[in-house]
Amino acid sequence: MVKIGIVGASGYTSSELMRLLVTHPRNLKIELVTSETFTGQRVDHVLPNLRGFIDLNFESLEIQNLGNQVDVVILAVPHKVAMGFVPQIRNQGIRIIDFSADYRLNDQLIYEEWYGIDHTDPSRMQNTVYGLPERYRDLIREANLVANPGCYPTTSILPSIPIISKQLVELDQIIIDAKSGISGAGSKPKDTTHYPNRESNLIAYGLASHRHTPEIEQELSAINGDKIIVNFTPHLVPMTRGILTTLYFKLKQPMSTQDLLDIYADFYQNEPFIRILDCGEYPQTKSVLGSNFCDIGLEVDPRTNRAIVMAATDNLMKGASGAAVQNFNLMFGYDETEGLMSPGLMP
Amino acid sequence: MVKIGIVGASGYTSSELMRLLVTHPRNLKIELVTSETFTGQRVDHVLPNLRGFIDLNFESLEIQNLGNQVDVVILAVPHKVAMGFVPQIRNQGIRIIDFSADYRLNDQLIYEEWYGIDHTDPSRMQNTVYGLPERYRDLIREANLVANPGCYPTTSILPSIPIISKQLVELDQIIIDAKSGISGAGSKPKDTTHYPNRESNLIAYGLASHRHTPEIEQELSAINGDKIIVNFTPHLVPMTRGILTTLYFKLKQPMSTQDLLDIYADFYQNEPFIRILDCGEYPQTKSVLGSNFCDIGLEVDPRTNRAIVMAATDNLMKGASGAAVQNFNLMFGYDETEGLMSPGLMP
Amino acid sequence: MVKIGIVGASGYTSSELMRLLVTHPRNLKIELVTSETFTGQRVDHVLPNLRGFIDLNFESLEIQNLGNQVDVVILAVPHKVAMGFVPQIRNQGIRIIDFSADYRLNDQLIYEEWYGIDHTDPSRMQNTVYGLPERYRDLIREANLVANPGCYPTTSILPSIPIISKQLVELDQIIIDAKSGISGAGSKPKDTTHYPNRESNLIAYGLASHRHTPEIEQELSAINGDKIIVNFTPHLVPMTRGILTTLYFKLKQPMSTQDLLDIYADFYQNEPFIRILDCGEYPQTKSVLGSNFCDIGLEVDPRTNRAIVMAATDNLMKGASGAAVQNFNLMFGYDETEGLMSPGLMP
Amino acid sequence: MVKIGIVGASGYTSSELMRLLVTHPRNLKIELVTSETFTGQRVDHVLPNLRGFIDLNFESLEIQNLGNQVDVVILAVPHKVAMGFVPQIRNQGIRIIDFSADYRLNDQLIYEEWYGIDHTDPSRMQNTVYGLPERYRDLIREANLVANPGCYPTTSILPSIPIISKQLVELDQIIIDAKSGISGAGSKPKDTTHYPNRESNLIAYGLASHRHTPEIEQELSAINGDKIIVNFTPHLVPMTRGILTTLYFKLKQPMSTQDLLDIYADFYQNEPFIRILDCGEYPQTKSVLGSNFCDIGLEVDPRTNRAIVMAATDNLMKGASGAAVQNFNLMFGYDETEGLMSPGLMP
Repeated sequence: MVKIGIVGASGYTSSELMRLLVTHPRNLKIELVTSETFTGQRVDHVLPNLRGFIDLNFESLEIQNLGNQVDVVILAVPHKVAMGFVPQIRNQGIRIIDFSADYRLNDQLIYEEWYGIDHTDPSRMQNTVYGLPERYRDLIREANLVANPGCYPTTSILPSIPIISKQLVELDQIIIDAKSGISGAGSKPKDTTHYPNRESNLIAYGLASHRHTPEIEQELSAINGDKIIVNFTPHLVPMTRGILTTLYFKLKQPMSTQDLLDIYADFYQNEPFIRILDCGEYPQTKSVLGSNFCDIGLEVDPRTNRAIVMAATDNLMKGASGAAVQNFNLMFGYDETEGLMSPGLMP
Repeated sequence: MVKIGIVGASGYTSSELMRLLVTHPRNLKIELVTSETFTGQRVDHVLPNLRGFIDLNFESLEIQNLGNQVDVVILAVPHKVAMGFVPQIRNQGIRIIDFSADYRLNDQLIYEEWYGIDHTDPSRMQNTVYGLPERYRDLIREANLVANPGCYPTTSILPSIPIISKQLVELDQIIIDAKSGISGAGSKPKDTTHYPNRESNLIAYGLASHRHTPEIEQELSAINGDKIIVNFTPHLVPMTRGILTTLYFKLKQPMSTQDLLDIYADFYQNEPFIRILDCGEYPQTKSVLGSNFCDIGLEVDPRTNRAIVMAATDNLMKGASGAAVQNFNLMFGYDETEGLMSPGLMP
Repeated sequence: MVKIGIVGASGYTSSELMRLLVTHPRNLKIELVTSETFTGQRVDHVLPNLRGFIDLNFESLEIQNLGNQVDVVILAVPHKVAMGFVPQIRNQGIRIIDFSADYRLNDQLIYEEWYGIDHTDPSRMQNTVYGLPERYRDLIREANLVANPGCYPTTSILPSIPIISKQLVELDQIIIDAKSGISGAGSKPKDTTHYPNRESNLIAYGLASHRHTPEIEQELSAINGDKIIVNFTPHLVPMTRGILTTLYFKLKQPMSTQDLLDIYADFYQNEPFIRILDCGEYPQTKSVLGSNFCDIGLEVDPRTNRAIVMAATDNLMKGASGAAVQNFNLMFGYDETEGLMSPGLMP
Repeated sequence: MVKIGIVGASGYTSSELMRLLVTHPRNLKIELVTSETFTGQRVDHVLPNLRGFIDLNFESLEIQNLGNQVDVVILAVPHKVAMGFVPQIRNQGIRIIDFSADYRLNDQLIYEEWYGIDHTDPSRMQNTVYGLPERYRDLIREANLVANPGCYPTTSILPSIPIISKQLVELDQIIIDAKSGISGAGSKPKDTTHYPNRESNLIAYGLASHRHTPEIEQELSAINGDKIIVNFTPHLVPMTRGILTTLYFKLKQPMSTQDLLDIYADFYQNEPFIRILDCGEYPQTKSVLGSNFCDIGLEVDPRTNRAIVMAATDNLMKGASGAAVQNFNLMFGYDETEGLMSPGLMP
């Protein structure tokens, strides 16, 4: 039996993780969930959807005792806090899946520039596996520390890999216009997540400064080794879950929509959670709601010779906790899809 | 292997049923899905969330051939159409779960009064099992025709059974104020389901005339044999899924909230899909989103000596297709909960 | 020129009030707006819809200086704070419209029971005019302190007055099931207003304990002098604005829907902001969105001899700031409808 | 008194127009409203928000009688139908504001290519004034036929004029990513406007083929006479009203966000309905809800030397009916802002 600890369990990535783990078919156990906010409260009082599925109270974290209790820690604390915990947890021999941004970037200077703080564990950041199975599946299997990707990066990188990999595009004209549901902003109430501020409202934010930008650029640059800089503009859309990215690529040579779709379909033919849509179909967030899929569709505009590629994910699933379970499955030798292979909740 | 046919498969009850059946753990197969609207189209083009899960085209119904193809038909056609099909399907020895209202009422006169048409198969309606497992579990196991309950009735009857069964209330003062998401109005676009008409909007409808009223009254009256008439007022709420009912019961004797909760918890202690909330907790539709649970909470108002009982379901799940799978499991000797035991999608 | 001060101006009632006052046709001026939260910030930075309409900064309140600055104060601070400010403002001879609950109830004991605090200005509370023009128009004209009604009370009292006034109903069977948009919970983010917690979700709250209950009961009891106790159950609906109340009245004698509608239409024939709908029409919140109307419709259920009466308002307009402007107009001798007579924003 | 006829009055542009005209301060009268769908029905039954504001029935169109009845026709029929009506209406000497696309493009070939039909009134299309007051104010004053702009074009052109006019950008790298509420799809129910299909959902549509593209290109090309081709990608967002456009411009020379904002603020300093936001502020659709404003904000990304310019409008107001009233005011010699100068409905 695999014993799991979830540290910092009061947020959405943790609640979604619990939702998945309580019905996971393998012999595993959520051994403890820690939350300083909810210490002592029943998990199913805070998360009433889990009533009947979990019989635990939130605990206060005693980091030095984790080694006696769990085989793996899902670390769901903010960046900066995470890099304080990781060394102590790793020293106890526990494997870690980290939801924070602290180990996603492998360049310390870029991290410090975008996050505005010193990295206190820089040697480890260079060796951490970026938890995108479609890119690093084999490394993840062996990893002791997996940096779970950000929701925007996953939904931006996956639709970019084939077209960049095949060297079809001008690398200095990549524009990513991303739209996200509100749950991406976390479970803690603030002005920007206040219902009346978001309902029937639409706004861009983080222009030219969103911290997922260097993460996207690192992974796009790694595809062929060419340095890539992108325009990344996120928007807040009045819905709870879901990310839709619209990517604009300038093609080097004219090609048809169908030909480009064929390249994508071929490239991803063995990926269990990537679905390439047919010509004329476009991804929509509801098709993947509550599921681990990334749906990708595209259209070539012959007038401008640009490919418009779109991807949809559930930001809490393929964009966070579904990906974490996928990584967990890989790390513990299970089939990658276990506990994850269900259709989106539609309508 | 159990072979399943879904007849009239273009609506929400059918799409939700397929969503459930494609991950059902037992050896079963969706053999055919018929839809006159979508004949010839791929199921996963109409329902893109099912891409990768089902490889079928919608077919036109050839009712006389069903006997060679399937063991059970899920009938998802409108009332009146259903009673035309049922005899032909039953004559081929096929078991049926019927989503329509045609066999829910056992009194022909009441059916004809509320539905405004003649019933063409009245003898069968009197013997059909009403598919509410919490009431008729053993009958369902043996049934060849199960009338799957309406969404409002399920969410009104389940929170009423304990308090009526224990004879705690004045029977002439039962008021049911129900609120439903828009998917209850079906998958066919109309003025009342047009997005701009429903978003940020709230309205009551079907006052004193909604056809689920006699269905509720039949089942409440059957509890103790006392004829019960209710006020039932449904409302359309701007959300896709979910029903919340607020029921007002005049208590014969004063009692505390906790005492009444204990009665409910005791009454439903063995029911896998009914969850009685703790004192001070109230059901919310999101806790049960995409799940088969019916969450029930309540409060006694000592000033008026009324119990306010609330229940929440997902109208497409426990209110329709989840209940159908539950009935299917019972009919085919499986554990009642197979393929259904997952938490709500929250947030 | 009438100079207006808005005290505690960071909430929704104040922002809505400013929205109305900046286009009010009379010679009036918003002289100052105070907010401790936003002191020093431009009003149109906090409320970007007002850009171009108001050129003020939020100030910190200096209560002793109000007398030199304004003719009327709109007091938009929480209950308990309000009763601390009112004496000091009134001592400077300034007229007040108070959004808080502190002067709505005229019975000190009931106030202290429901609000759990001592009232520090009890003599004044007994003489304060309840600012519902449809009941107290002439008193409001002369009043120096008007207690602006709560949103639920307005939307519960207006549809009750005719039927109670005409003595048509059993007084011990009045049930008010109310549904409100989220803006009623205020502008300050909290768990219950967090977008992911409310979107696609529906829940009741404040059962048997909501503080608007005694306010409703006071005003219903005042109609004929009969003490009336009600069941009042509010619900949170996923929309920003709007209240719909569904009221259940047991009729003493059978009557038709049309006859009861005629009584309502006759009763309210001279009211500029009450619209009685035709037979078969039911009020919807979107019809009154952003407007000062209260739409009322009804249906008699002959099977149970109950009248189901429904009313819709915009909780920030007729339920708060529209009513305040209506009271302001009365207090300053303007036509009651000035600055308020516009249709709802539909769709 | 100006007498107005609205032809094809059952859609959203007409209902919004009526909402505005019933409170317009000038001496005008809605003389007739025609709708084949609703002939004989009271306007305020179909549009209950207008109850008390308009006392008319929808009539069937008798086009040859318009000359005896009205001074101006607002034509709210689909493209193709409009070009059949315009000659007959103009022949009676009636001025026209046309909501359709039939007279927006001045190039017959482009019209026929994008709309797939022959234009039957091509000589007139070349001389029709495009009803964007910020570009063609003086022409509109004298015009007898004004082609009211599309919602996407207005919200794409206005934020483009200053930066293109000043020759700051590479003309072959303009990308317009547009997001719209559902009301833009019209008042007639269809699959794409069915509430459950749109709620919590996000999808792109009309890629590389949306008919507003040539309209945008015509007007951008007209600024300096340089032919401009754009990528225009619209998305459907789960809200009723509002358009947000995100435009990506490659700058020829580096410049700061503030400098570019100053250019915009200077350029539009006399425009009553364009508001340039301050540095760090971004437009949001709710700020302009129900209002005639176009809010514009921007950010320069120094890493890519691109300006990201965003604009927000209410698609039914500045994007349709508000613009029509603005044009109407100009045509009849009123102040351009009459009946239009009110803040957005926020929250």
